[in-house]
Amino acid sequence: MAQQIRATIERYVTAVGSGDTDDILALYAPEATVEDPVGTPIRTTREQLREFYDVLTGLERHAELHEDAVRIADRHAAFRFTLVTTVAGQRFTVSPIDVMEFDADGRILTMRAFWGSEDLRAEPI
Amino acid sequence: MAQQIRATIERYVTAVGSGDTDDILALYAPEATVEDPVGTPIRTTREQLREFYDVLTGLERHAELHEDAVRIADRHAAFRFTLVTTVAGQRFTVSPIDVMEFDADGRILTMRAFWGSEDLRAEPI
Repeated sequence: MAQQIRATIERYVTAVGSGDTDDILALYAPEATVEDPVGTPIRTTREQLREFYDVLTGLERHAELHEDAVRIADRHAAFRFTLVTTVAGQRFTVSPIDVMEFDADGRILTMRAFWGSEDLRAEPI
Repeated sequence: MAQQIRATIERYVTAVGSGDTDDILALYAPEATVEDPVGTPIRTTREQLREFYDVLTGLERHAELHEDAVRIADRHAAFRFTLVTTVAGQRFTVSPIDVMEFDADGRILTMRAFWGSEDLRAEPI
């Protein structure tokens, strides 16, 4: 199970960094929910998840998993990754800690992203 | 609020590394729960929390917060720290990602520790 979860996490970060919305959504269970960042309204429908990731996949970007910060416990995991996006001549870097729960097939059931505005860095290119 | 939460996290890691059980429990709200590691039964009473931390505070140990891996979102936080304990001539190192929810006073309401057996390293001293 831990191996399956690790594979999903790696695929997730790859898809977030260079895939399209369908690549990302394929990793989610049909009933999945997304809370990003934690404390904001939870997205509960497929349409809301698609809308959320469409914003991201429309941008120039790349993402990297911090291999030393992946922790898997039972059907749950926490991991840190860094996402760099380029928008209007600015480079935005954010490095959230994502917490996920998985179903028996290793698909994501819940995603909660821990980051605050103080974790978002903007710099001119 | 983020500043208060950060202070609680720093006090927590300090107390886990060198304080006594009372120092640790003082950071928890009265109704607090602990799930460590995630997937094991949740400790819900003060007695269960005390019993859990008594095992730790009875050991030779130190702990360190990874300053680059602290993420605060609303009344929630995720952070990575490393705990080194010495037992019977062996040094055990574990570096969990802890996820906490806080009350309005910055006290810990829930603690969930993400780590698996593959994250525990043992070496002779």
